[in-house]
Amino acid sequence: MYNGEKITAEEVIAISQLPFTGIVQTLPDTVPFTAPEQMERQSGQKTILRLGANESPFGMSPQAMQAMAASLREAMWYGDPESYDLRKELERRFGFAMGRTVIDSGIDALLGLLVRVFVEPGQSVVTSKGAYPTFLYHVAGYGGLQHLVPYLSYLNDLDKLAATAREVKAKMVYLANPDNPTGTYYTALEIAEFLRDLPADCLFLLDEAYVEFAPGDIHLPPETDDARLVRLRTFSKVHGLAGCRIGYAVAHPDIVKAMNKTRNHFGVNRMAQAGALASLHDAGFVTRVVQETAKGRQEYYDLAAELGFHALESATNFVAVDVGDAERAGALVNDLWRSGIFVRSPGTEPLNRLVRITVGTPEQRQKLATTLRGICRGNRKEG
Amino acid sequence: MYNGEKITAEEVIAISQLPFTGIVQTLPDTVPFTAPEQMERQSGQKTILRLGANESPFGMSPQAMQAMAASLREAMWYGDPESYDLRKELERRFGFAMGRTVIDSGIDALLGLLVRVFVEPGQSVVTSKGAYPTFLYHVAGYGGLQHLVPYLSYLNDLDKLAATAREVKAKMVYLANPDNPTGTYYTALEIAEFLRDLPADCLFLLDEAYVEFAPGDIHLPPETDDARLVRLRTFSKVHGLAGCRIGYAVAHPDIVKAMNKTRNHFGVNRMAQAGALASLHDAGFVTRVVQETAKGRQEYYDLAAELGFHALESATNFVAVDVGDAERAGALVNDLWRSGIFVRSPGTEPLNRLVRITVGTPEQRQKLATTLRGICRGNRKEG
Repeated sequence: MYNGEKITAEEVIAISQLPFTGIVQTLPDTVPFTAPEQMERQSGQKTILRLGANESPFGMSPQAMQAMAASLREAMWYGDPESYDLRKELERRFGFAMGRTVIDSGIDALLGLLVRVFVEPGQSVVTSKGAYPTFLYHVAGYGGLQHLVPYLSYLNDLDKLAATAREVKAKMVYLANPDNPTGTYYTALEIAEFLRDLPADCLFLLDEAYVEFAPGDIHLPPETDDARLVRLRTFSKVHGLAGCRIGYAVAHPDIVKAMNKTRNHFGVNRMAQAGALASLHDAGFVTRVVQETAKGRQEYYDLAAELGFHALESATNFVAVDVGDAERAGALVNDLWRSGIFVRSPGTEPLNRLVRITVGTPEQRQKLATTLRGICRGNRKEG
Repeated sequence: MYNGEKITAEEVIAISQLPFTGIVQTLPDTVPFTAPEQMERQSGQKTILRLGANESPFGMSPQAMQAMAASLREAMWYGDPESYDLRKELERRFGFAMGRTVIDSGIDALLGLLVRVFVEPGQSVVTSKGAYPTFLYHVAGYGGLQHLVPYLSYLNDLDKLAATAREVKAKMVYLANPDNPTGTYYTALEIAEFLRDLPADCLFLLDEAYVEFAPGDIHLPPETDDARLVRLRTFSKVHGLAGCRIGYAVAHPDIVKAMNKTRNHFGVNRMAQAGALASLHDAGFVTRVVQETAKGRQEYYDLAAELGFHALESATNFVAVDVGDAERAGALVNDLWRSGIFVRSPGTEPLNRLVRITVGTPEQRQKLATTLRGICRGNRKEG
């Protein structure tokens, strides 16, 4: 056994001199999101309704559940590093050629990989001010420079984004369509025009996490000649598999090759591969979730109007409610949390006037409505 | 809908000019490992025995299975990004303080993160020639320089590794203990001496993936004052959760902080967190797997002797058999695959004389023995 002998002070590296890279030494001590589990530990409050991270309250397809349960018997084996069967099904189902797809453990992992593959330290990326924080977390993590364009009436300002990309010679532009956290969207035609406006050597990361919830005119064709376009999709939202960690990129074959030279090849878990494949086979389930979500959005719009707030029309599984100012938004988020309801408000102006609420099941929506009415009535009495 | 209008050639980036980083442009088109699923697709042969990747043929603990099945009901929720409950249990069970642990989706992911956090392009790392390919894959992927020290009689050459680290001013040294692919090991005392020999500003990544299978004198104390030591552990081996993708690092709190500033916070799946926690609670299961594995190793030693080969004594769940030369090792791997038995032989001299075989269940070991005897008898008749 180890004799427990102490290493002398001279021999040990001084802790302040740990030889981190230059980039890592400058990184701040922040994380993209605080999870409800962390909020529970900090506050002692138990989560009763989980409506803050746009996870699907409708769960997964029964077929996916069955496939995942069966896959537990094979969970001692690594997953297929090529996720071949799943990519084959994506090709069959959506027309995404197998040479154009990469599966990884969610869009977050893919964003990190794409930033790593394209952005050298000191190079520029462009996105909206208030866009998905995890993208910017990765940009900072790889030493990229952020150029942020303010939202225009809760829409991504496409003209300004393209102009800024030209101005700063951006390596990449990131956009979610439909957008998170506003829920707004652009049509495929508008997106294609935006892509034409970007510099010839600027990548366009198009995050389509919520695309299944949007109107039909959002859909781009499965293939494009434009090597700049990288589309990102996930099984975390409409498929209800957020906890399984699986998503995919659709990109030019040369980009796919570069991602395959750098990604963690055995990073996707076997159960997720089985669940995602089964969920693709159950198109009826996705349709039902989309329909129920549309119903729930309408209920949220009506509830917001009843309480004197303005709900943004949403093409996603959440609704962003403009409650007038950041202070009120923060207070509402806190009041809801004290009732065990987890929702979020963006941290950045002017989006911090929004309270973003995931569309719940009918029972969850009713509980939310009752609680929210109670809070607003109480506030009016106090005020 | 998108009108399908073509983007003109002038407007589209030339594919050869895709703006990859300098590092990515120089990377070769290789991957660390070919999985049995890929071999099946290439050869048309079906895998009958999966004994090539040191996955546990004993599967997972029944308690882990039950916990994972139950966790499917919560699989629509992201996992806790802090893996708090699991880290708390690691502290209780092994004395690894919570401030010293990071959970990620397996040792592969942790190796990538540690290389990223410490190695700048052009900086040096040291390991054995023939060591775990995924570590070197990540080193190449982040632009690090590899300095490889030959094995000495199938042992990592500790003196030479330390001397090389001093000589090349290495940023980090990587070592698996017990070793993969040889199965040899050093005692905690020898490892502690090796650490003292390393330069003061050189990290030591100690991969303990197989530590549970080794004799008791391998165990380092849970805490050390030496900030250079980073230990890596996994649930993929003795716990039988390879397909779940979960492992952990034990490191100085400042290193943990740096990893938390860069890692993919929502990268670990919820089922894996549940399974790993339950498996830690089932210490009896681990003991039974270790005992059965020891029995299987002895059977492999005896089988190798019977066939005129030399099996290396192993402190892991696999046995490396020296079959004399690289050609014979390659032929045996191919012959076994033609019978549907997946094993591996290292690609690097002098380890390419080894055939590495995971310890199977009693039935699997019998099937392997029968097949191997048949192959060797056939070869003798032909020769």
